Amino acid sequence: MKTLKLGLIGFGRIGKIHFYNIQQRIREAEILMVSDPAADLSETGVATGTPDDILEHPEIEAVIVCSPTDTHADFVEKCAAKGKHIFCEKPLDLSLERISRTLKLVGQSGVKLMLGFNRRFDANFLKIKNLVTSGSVGNPHLIKITSRDPGPPPLSYLKESGGMFLDMTIHDFDMARYIMGKEVKQVYASAAVFWGEDIRAAGDIDTAVITLKFEDGSMAVIDNSRKAVYGYDQRLEVFGSKGMVNVDNNKPDNHFFYNENGVHSALPLHFFLERYTESYLYEMREFIKALATGHDISVGGSDALQATLIALAAKKSVLENRPVDIDEVRP
Amino acid sequence: MKTLKLGLIGFGRIGKIHFYNIQQRIREAEILMVSDPAADLSETGVATGTPDDILEHPEIEAVIVCSPTDTHADFVEKCAAKGKHIFCEKPLDLSLERISRTLKLVGQSGVKLMLGFNRRFDANFLKIKNLVTSGSVGNPHLIKITSRDPGPPPLSYLKESGGMFLDMTIHDFDMARYIMGKEVKQVYASAAVFWGEDIRAAGDIDTAVITLKFEDGSMAVIDNSRKAVYGYDQRLEVFGSKGMVNVDNNKPDNHFFYNENGVHSALPLHFFLERYTESYLYEMREFIKALATGHDISVGGSDALQATLIALAAKKSVLENRPVDIDEVRP
Amino acid sequence: MKTLKLGLIGFGRIGKIHFYNIQQRIREAEILMVSDPAADLSETGVATGTPDDILEHPEIEAVIVCSPTDTHADFVEKCAAKGKHIFCEKPLDLSLERISRTLKLVGQSGVKLMLGFNRRFDANFLKIKNLVTSGSVGNPHLIKITSRDPGPPPLSYLKESGGMFLDMTIHDFDMARYIMGKEVKQVYASAAVFWGEDIRAAGDIDTAVITLKFEDGSMAVIDNSRKAVYGYDQRLEVFGSKGMVNVDNNKPDNHFFYNENGVHSALPLHFFLERYTESYLYEMREFIKALATGHDISVGGSDALQATLIALAAKKSVLENRPVDIDEVRP
Amino acid sequence: MKTLKLGLIGFGRIGKIHFYNIQQRIREAEILMVSDPAADLSETGVATGTPDDILEHPEIEAVIVCSPTDTHADFVEKCAAKGKHIFCEKPLDLSLERISRTLKLVGQSGVKLMLGFNRRFDANFLKIKNLVTSGSVGNPHLIKITSRDPGPPPLSYLKESGGMFLDMTIHDFDMARYIMGKEVKQVYASAAVFWGEDIRAAGDIDTAVITLKFEDGSMAVIDNSRKAVYGYDQRLEVFGSKGMVNVDNNKPDNHFFYNENGVHSALPLHFFLERYTESYLYEMREFIKALATGHDISVGGSDALQATLIALAAKKSVLENRPVDIDEVRP
Repeated sequence: MKTLKLGLIGFGRIGKIHFYNIQQRIREAEILMVSDPAADLSETGVATGTPDDILEHPEIEAVIVCSPTDTHADFVEKCAAKGKHIFCEKPLDLSLERISRTLKLVGQSGVKLMLGFNRRFDANFLKIKNLVTSGSVGNPHLIKITSRDPGPPPLSYLKESGGMFLDMTIHDFDMARYIMGKEVKQVYASAAVFWGEDIRAAGDIDTAVITLKFEDGSMAVIDNSRKAVYGYDQRLEVFGSKGMVNVDNNKPDNHFFYNENGVHSALPLHFFLERYTESYLYEMREFIKALATGHDISVGGSDALQATLIALAAKKSVLENRPVDIDEVRP
Repeated sequence: MKTLKLGLIGFGRIGKIHFYNIQQRIREAEILMVSDPAADLSETGVATGTPDDILEHPEIEAVIVCSPTDTHADFVEKCAAKGKHIFCEKPLDLSLERISRTLKLVGQSGVKLMLGFNRRFDANFLKIKNLVTSGSVGNPHLIKITSRDPGPPPLSYLKESGGMFLDMTIHDFDMARYIMGKEVKQVYASAAVFWGEDIRAAGDIDTAVITLKFEDGSMAVIDNSRKAVYGYDQRLEVFGSKGMVNVDNNKPDNHFFYNENGVHSALPLHFFLERYTESYLYEMREFIKALATGHDISVGGSDALQATLIALAAKKSVLENRPVDIDEVRP
Repeated sequence: MKTLKLGLIGFGRIGKIHFYNIQQRIREAEILMVSDPAADLSETGVATGTPDDILEHPEIEAVIVCSPTDTHADFVEKCAAKGKHIFCEKPLDLSLERISRTLKLVGQSGVKLMLGFNRRFDANFLKIKNLVTSGSVGNPHLIKITSRDPGPPPLSYLKESGGMFLDMTIHDFDMARYIMGKEVKQVYASAAVFWGEDIRAAGDIDTAVITLKFEDGSMAVIDNSRKAVYGYDQRLEVFGSKGMVNVDNNKPDNHFFYNENGVHSALPLHFFLERYTESYLYEMREFIKALATGHDISVGGSDALQATLIALAAKKSVLENRPVDIDEVRP
Repeated sequence: MKTLKLGLIGFGRIGKIHFYNIQQRIREAEILMVSDPAADLSETGVATGTPDDILEHPEIEAVIVCSPTDTHADFVEKCAAKGKHIFCEKPLDLSLERISRTLKLVGQSGVKLMLGFNRRFDANFLKIKNLVTSGSVGNPHLIKITSRDPGPPPLSYLKESGGMFLDMTIHDFDMARYIMGKEVKQVYASAAVFWGEDIRAAGDIDTAVITLKFEDGSMAVIDNSRKAVYGYDQRLEVFGSKGMVNVDNNKPDNHFFYNENGVHSALPLHFFLERYTESYLYEMREFIKALATGHDISVGGSDALQATLIALAAKKSVLENRPVDIDEVRP
């Protein structure tokens, strides 16, 4: 099979994951050039350059965008203008207007755009999706998502993140839509700050319970926390007319140690790099495969838009302490 | 130890549980007389009579009230007037005004009143309560309760039940207050009807997600359904500053059967009679012991009042689709 | 239904269990008289007397024998001679000759004899038995039993117990035969003393691994210990041509507590009184029912004999460090 | 860090695993040449040649031997003669005499030899090893290993495998020694054929229970089967004076699906390629690191010898139906 040539913009934590997945574990593609003004790129062993060098590179057909959030939309638009396909980390942008504009330009250009909602490719969630889609759980009535980080990001990051709903819960909003296969109509969010006054001072929250109503009356409830002393908590449960399915956390091992004090077992895998290692690989394989075959991409621009709409409605709901319709935040 | 003499009003499903627990498994007490106009009382082997016979019985010191809901307050007031202690099944009444009046009369009479929130005495929930009270989970931030029945009660029962929140969720409202050790300030409830148009026609709901805010900003989220095809789902989870604790359902056995199709294990114990068998015994032991020792009862009239207030706020929240303060429904 | 009248010989730990199960939880039977020269019988509230008083009691149709092991065979023979049915705690006797003689006398008398292999009535093991009998696991190839006590009995008890195989493993030998539905042909036992030199000095062992071969080539492996610091360990596993089934221990609650140090859960129920509470009730119900209906009893004299044969072969195997055929120890 | 140059002999199932692990996931080493007369080596993208080409290659410092079993000892000896370090798949050879001779030559040459007992590097077993070594379980009394394959290998493979004990159980013998940190003194094995007359005709067995006695009286029990309809069963349990630890199988996901028929969850990972994916990587990393740092290798020639001795004793035990001392089979 002909090898697809890629460029990578942003060699931070996520950029490295994609780089090594593509170079080492995906035979059909190859990264030709990496760009990151702030990173040591010597370990990559490939050509380096500016983003423009990548955009102008005649062999590069697609670009992986892992740069800071506030540059995503710019790079996506530039890629589209150059006819290069795009894999872009979430969020596409924090502003609905910008997202809409960017998606419009992408649409006009005809390039493919995939958004990095990697959790959709986790084996546990894929299993649930499969049981829902196959009808095994019947008509899904309620999805419950527990999503808690082991600890909050640095305050500097928090301040530019757009707030917990746009930065963290956005994954859960996407997951709720994805698993249920329906669109959200209304949001009610209840929030608190339990983990530090600096978070409150930054105008953000660190704990929330969010109730979503879908168009057909089915519901979702998400609970988030920026900190869980026992590690990364990523669980999901769907209740339907024919059954219920849930998934527990992944653990580093399955040991159970029994002594006089009780039974002791392992904590969940520490954080997203450990928990979602394989999901990053699988999402990239789908992207590469879609480009190679011309098939549609399953996580595209409209998913970015919908998840952002829910996040903005959640934000408004907290501020006004009332349920907010998605239509209220739609531009 | 001197044997406490009791009377029992109502020999239905719950009445029978209390009867046999007292007669067979609690040595310090004895039921002298049972009253139930609709039941065959021959199996009891004790004297039978009208409620008035019990109220007038000179040896009977306390009465167990298991009659239909709409007679609870009457019997409680009469017992109080006669100086007899009372164990009353929940709910005390559906009307806040009546509950208040009855509690006032009980308070003036000096008799002890215990409400049948039996789930507080379940080994799983006691373990969680103990871990919260001991400080093991730190400051509790969120309690999550899953509470689903295997199937809805008859429509005739539903119509007189006061609605799902007052009939079913009231146990969960009590549990949330009990475990967290705090009072609820605000309620938001999102509800649906998934299990039958007759339920909707009766003006009731069968599925709900309820978010509670406590006075200090901590939260609870409860999900209920009148039907779960896989049986009685009774789980609970508390997230705190030092840890998290959850309890899974109890099962009839711990088998795991592996064959070519997967791993198969037992469904949860079918319904409340199976799941809460022991909790009914333990709550009655506490009642008997409190009478014998003069100690306070842990589940009293104010618990009935508070749970009812939350239920009424939840009802109002669904009707008006907005968060409702407890103060709004307080008489 | 006509009430069956019973006598009880021996009001020790097990005697009390049977007494209260019969008096409080089995409606079809009633204990009229209890005999125990060493126990305070005032709590029973029934007539007391010597064993002879029970044997001569005209109304008593069956006797529950819970006296010390070395009196079992005597009482069983006397009951048989008086035409009274017998429920006898295990072991029937430590001597094969005596067991054979007693069973012969019982057989001639026509009375029913049930042996107290209560574990057969445990919900977990019943579930496994059912899956094996129904063919779900296919042809059973191997049964594995883990059976460990929380701590060794007093040395005085050990010295009269007949040794670990006859006292403790005998339950597991019975379980292996029961679940597999086959007879054992050969035994190899490997043993050690890890928990105290006094046990070795008493000529006993405290830890063993025993391999059984059944007539058809299928196998069992049992591991025993007189002590497990984490409590009573009672697990079982069957491997067959169509699947595998195992059961885990029962626990007092299903909590999982997560904190920075790991996940903590409950130890198994402490000992046999807690683990097998219900199995004692169910076995007695079977006994009572068999007497009432005339049906066969599922655990009879030949089960006592077979389990004893296996235990004696295991003993011989340890002494001679070789596999021992059951035929070698058969009288 | 300087890159270690390697050669690979044998590009079959295991050879491929090592090839891609080294090329893609181990930065400190690189395979320069691959040899396999029967495989398509075009996918490797490196030089190919005969084993002699590898042995003569001036830059290659170490060789990975994944060729058929009967060539292992030859290649190991040749590598040693050429001063090249060796990673060799198990077993080193089926003959004790040959193993001894080869180890002697390796010892004289001064090269390092690592044997492919990859399971030692599985996260679950490492956790157990750590708990045993740290003293958490106290003095280890008994190790229990369940090791069952999803299905038997082709008959052609079976015939040259040396029999189940040398081919399959040898991993478990190594595991028992490794975890317990002691040498085995005596073996008793009980075996059967349940999965096909062709296996019996080939002089082999397919099911076994093996009891090991260590020098200090502690024990191991292993149960094996060439087939388990529910998949690859790899569990381990250690009982000690201070506690017990066990590990369950790894599964592809953690879902639990509840419907009217019960609770359904995933089968174990299908076979060793799935279950031990990471352990192959970790063992190779240890090999590379030991070469780079000059440190000792944890799994060497004497481990191959000891495991083979136990396997031969087990074989003899089945044939003669008696416990066999390791000393009896030592050359």
